[in-house]
Amino acid sequence: MISVVILGAGNVASHLYRGFRVAENVTVSQWYNRSLDAILEYSHEVDITDSLDDLKVADVYILAVSDDAIAELSERLPFENRVVVHTSGSVGVYDLDKKHKRGVLYPLQSFTKGTILDFSEVPICIETIHKKSYALLKELAVSLGGPTQRVNSDQRRVLHLAAVFVNNFTNQLYRIGHEITESEGAEFDMLKPLIKETARKLEDLSPFRAQTGPAKRNDKKTIKKHLKLLEANTDHKKIYELLTASIQKTHGRKKL
Amino acid sequence: MISVVILGAGNVASHLYRGFRVAENVTVSQWYNRSLDAILEYSHEVDITDSLDDLKVADVYILAVSDDAIAELSERLPFENRVVVHTSGSVGVYDLDKKHKRGVLYPLQSFTKGTILDFSEVPICIETIHKKSYALLKELAVSLGGPTQRVNSDQRRVLHLAAVFVNNFTNQLYRIGHEITESEGAEFDMLKPLIKETARKLEDLSPFRAQTGPAKRNDKKTIKKHLKLLEANTDHKKIYELLTASIQKTHGRKKL
Repeated sequence: MISVVILGAGNVASHLYRGFRVAENVTVSQWYNRSLDAILEYSHEVDITDSLDDLKVADVYILAVSDDAIAELSERLPFENRVVVHTSGSVGVYDLDKKHKRGVLYPLQSFTKGTILDFSEVPICIETIHKKSYALLKELAVSLGGPTQRVNSDQRRVLHLAAVFVNNFTNQLYRIGHEITESEGAEFDMLKPLIKETARKLEDLSPFRAQTGPAKRNDKKTIKKHLKLLEANTDHKKIYELLTASIQKTHGRKKL
Repeated sequence: MISVVILGAGNVASHLYRGFRVAENVTVSQWYNRSLDAILEYSHEVDITDSLDDLKVADVYILAVSDDAIAELSERLPFENRVVVHTSGSVGVYDLDKKHKRGVLYPLQSFTKGTILDFSEVPICIETIHKKSYALLKELAVSLGGPTQRVNSDQRRVLHLAAVFVNNFTNQLYRIGHEITESEGAEFDMLKPLIKETARKLEDLSPFRAQTGPAKRNDKKTIKKHLKLLEANTDHKKIYELLTASIQKTHGRKKL
């Protein structure tokens, strides 16, 4: 049985708490937050505290707090030589105080408040400086039920960066699609099956092989029509031009 | 029973053929292609021809050919006053020869060769000039089993444009994510659950409300780290900057 203490009460902390609560070989010994209010509702099922001095002894301490708070919180922990991990994609593992056995458990997923997360769909990237704690962190990550992968700092950093492209930027393209369709009173809902299929296709094909459309075909007539439709919106037009050029470069077409 | 003749042998034509073959109230009377080779394998189940003069009488003629071929083919059809539609998102309905009862059946989906398409996930946009043929085209579209929507030319044009953003451009962001992860030997597969969840979220939330990440939070520290990682690739850096600015504009943050 692995005992963990969770520190923080944001989205990631709350989802991890629920994930570990149902994991068979994990006990959440305690949940810490600087303000008790946010975790008070769980006091009937887990020991909660707002005092670092009252932290229990546990196998792993999970700092699921905002990026900016990680270094300071790890420093303020009143013990040493215990396994302490953070959950951030972009903060270095060396930002944790060196008095700890340091590591990272980075869940590569988008966490929405209030939704129940299916942890079988949450890959966990494991990084550790203290080699001996890898097996422990691996077991902890596996207990959540999704894929796990050992990564180094550089790999975690690029995964976080790539996640911004495939999640935040993709979502902004959905938003632009929404704006474009609404401008003529067309229904954005009509695009949702296409959006799903675009994501689903990656099960069978690499994004390189899955590409289609006017940019890849170098269909100048259609591209010209689209740019004309976008004349009134310089921002959308710039994005259209840049991503069209990017596709054409990837697929060996000339630039616009 | 609605009788249709399909013209063309590309992806859309082939998928529509299969869709109509299993539709209860539709008969594919004939399949035309300028070269018989591409449709020869179907000759045991449908009448095939490469001669426009041999076209049978049918309720609807579906021109599922390349955008550039639509106008000329519609002109060369040796009859008039019959319902003739094309399937393109970007070609005008008036590009069809005016001797016909003109319309469009635009399937808003990405068609991949060789895969079996689930038509319940293919929205069909219906446009018609000849008002009396709307009911017929509606019945034909509905027979495929997916959602249908009546649209005008402007709406079809913006749906096609928006489809490029949510399909081709999104897929290019996946490609960039692939390049970025591979640059450090990280696994692109680790991003696939996130990609799926980003698309799935739209079931519950608008893209506006679904947005998260450093651009929306105006998390300058993380954005700076990412731009540093992208220093070696000017193209990716430009896309990062432009889409970050786009998100910040949408969510009322300052520009970079």
